[in-house]
Amino acid sequence: MENPVLAEVTRGGTVESRHRGAAIVVDADGGTVLSLGDVERPVFPRSAVKALQALPLFESGAADRYGLSEPEIALAVASHSGEPAHAETSLAMLKKAGRDAGCLECGAHWPMNEAAARAMAKAGQEPSALNNNCSGKHAGFVCLACGLDEDPAGYVKAAHAVQKAVRGALEEVTGAAHSTDLMGTDGCSIPTYAVPLSALARGFARFGSGQGLGPARAAAAARIRKAVAAHPFMVAGTGRFDTRAMELLRARLFIKTGAEGVYCGALPELGLGIALKCDDGAGRAAEVVMAALIARFLPMSDAEAAGFAPMRESVLKNWNGIEVGRVQAAQA
Amino acid sequence: MENPVLAEVTRGGTVESRHRGAAIVVDADGGTVLSLGDVERPVFPRSAVKALQALPLFESGAADRYGLSEPEIALAVASHSGEPAHAETSLAMLKKAGRDAGCLECGAHWPMNEAAARAMAKAGQEPSALNNNCSGKHAGFVCLACGLDEDPAGYVKAAHAVQKAVRGALEEVTGAAHSTDLMGTDGCSIPTYAVPLSALARGFARFGSGQGLGPARAAAAARIRKAVAAHPFMVAGTGRFDTRAMELLRARLFIKTGAEGVYCGALPELGLGIALKCDDGAGRAAEVVMAALIARFLPMSDAEAAGFAPMRESVLKNWNGIEVGRVQAAQA
Repeated sequence: MENPVLAEVTRGGTVESRHRGAAIVVDADGGTVLSLGDVERPVFPRSAVKALQALPLFESGAADRYGLSEPEIALAVASHSGEPAHAETSLAMLKKAGRDAGCLECGAHWPMNEAAARAMAKAGQEPSALNNNCSGKHAGFVCLACGLDEDPAGYVKAAHAVQKAVRGALEEVTGAAHSTDLMGTDGCSIPTYAVPLSALARGFARFGSGQGLGPARAAAAARIRKAVAAHPFMVAGTGRFDTRAMELLRARLFIKTGAEGVYCGALPELGLGIALKCDDGAGRAAEVVMAALIARFLPMSDAEAAGFAPMRESVLKNWNGIEVGRVQAAQA
Repeated sequence: MENPVLAEVTRGGTVESRHRGAAIVVDADGGTVLSLGDVERPVFPRSAVKALQALPLFESGAADRYGLSEPEIALAVASHSGEPAHAETSLAMLKKAGRDAGCLECGAHWPMNEAAARAMAKAGQEPSALNNNCSGKHAGFVCLACGLDEDPAGYVKAAHAVQKAVRGALEEVTGAAHSTDLMGTDGCSIPTYAVPLSALARGFARFGSGQGLGPARAAAAARIRKAVAAHPFMVAGTGRFDTRAMELLRARLFIKTGAEGVYCGALPELGLGIALKCDDGAGRAAEVVMAALIARFLPMSDAEAAGFAPMRESVLKNWNGIEVGRVQAAQA
């Protein structure tokens, strides 16, 4: 069985490109609310599970030991755009643990935000690991290592106490074995494990509702959700879908994009978890499919619906600013 | 019938993403040599047909009237990276027709080449239409308009003499009607018409061999092929697949990438034309599929094969320079 077309790209009145994929929405009891395509094929969740990867930072007591603020907590689960506030907040987290940017093992890249990258280039600056979209997650890993009284060096390796704790949390929350046979290396050098979308959705239903988690883990999840709802800019950045959607819907929504067309999220008040992947890895498609699922399941006030409507499709403009096409969800 | 998987993206030992699509190789008599997927569904060829769109520039006599050089001819069929030599050559073409960059209607964007873009930002410069990847094609359109003694203003519009000539050439070479029902607006504001891959491949078999074209058109095609073979840098840019492949294989190969996962090309000595599109619009997949088709059909010397081997797959490295995956053709 092939996965269905989840999103279409039109140009003029013609469909130019098509994105296939799979998506699932489950409740916290594990009941399937919606399922499209093969949701049991293992997929690498990539950055879509950063919120789950951050749970040990709280359960270990490290977040309290270093007094992490709400913006810092939001940044710890971010794929941020490398804007100045993101880089500064990463550094602040590291300093709280008595460390600096030299500890980061994620590698450096130019800010994803174009204006921020141009401004750095114009000022004759080079990007550092603080501009890496994962620097907040990595600063959190350094805090976790220090909180565990472990040397942070090598914290990206599967055998380090940090990644063991992260893998343990992922396995427990998703209920899926994280096998080294299905292990890959992520863009920021930490291990990523392929698991079924059904398990990811279950994990996010639990993360969003607390149901099925122990009290400490449920409290950690609630703290992360609260921080992100208060600081959606920190989890992504200027103009990004995650930021815009959560600035509108706040604690009613938790979503997180991942590389290669993955998206995970939770609708906490409904106890629903969502996971999807576009087969081809296209983020542009994953975004409109997530938007369609949110619109389908989350009751919105008129004001919310009006604010959310423009997020449901991407208008493609050419270099003269003329609208030439759209990216739209095909179903759901 | 769904299109087959043409390329796979692996991470560790696991397939992370899959790209479906269709591809066809035909000979100049119209015989099908290889066909994968639905090659009769209309697709927007986008920039993959720039070489066909340039034919009227020669047939009209404009290229001779303005004494266009070989690098300029190569640039007229380019999706270039906006590097300094590209921008300078575009401007030189315009000056030969007594015009300047103010005539260009393609819009401005930052150079696709990252280093060139950073250097411009560092120098406090803003990009102009000369940096637009289509500026050479547009400079050619301006030369064509002037050569036809037409006002270039509005040369991007379907009703302008330039676009009428371009559409006529496309229809005759591909043998496919270019219907306004299947017209879209390209990134650089000119019309693009959806036609079957089978027609595009036929057009490129003719373009590569001259077979089935009149003498003037066959001469124009030969002149374009010769210019690109001599100046592959002009048609793309530093590190780009089109440039690297044609620097290696020169006149044995003509290929041209287009947006949204389209690739067209010709193997002139074999009289073969090639056209493919990845359903999802992914250029990373289109490139490795084109490489696989070239390797399958074009006999290579040991030296050529050794040079071409690294172009057959894309190695994905993370921000620490670690190899984390590959993009590879799945068949062909």
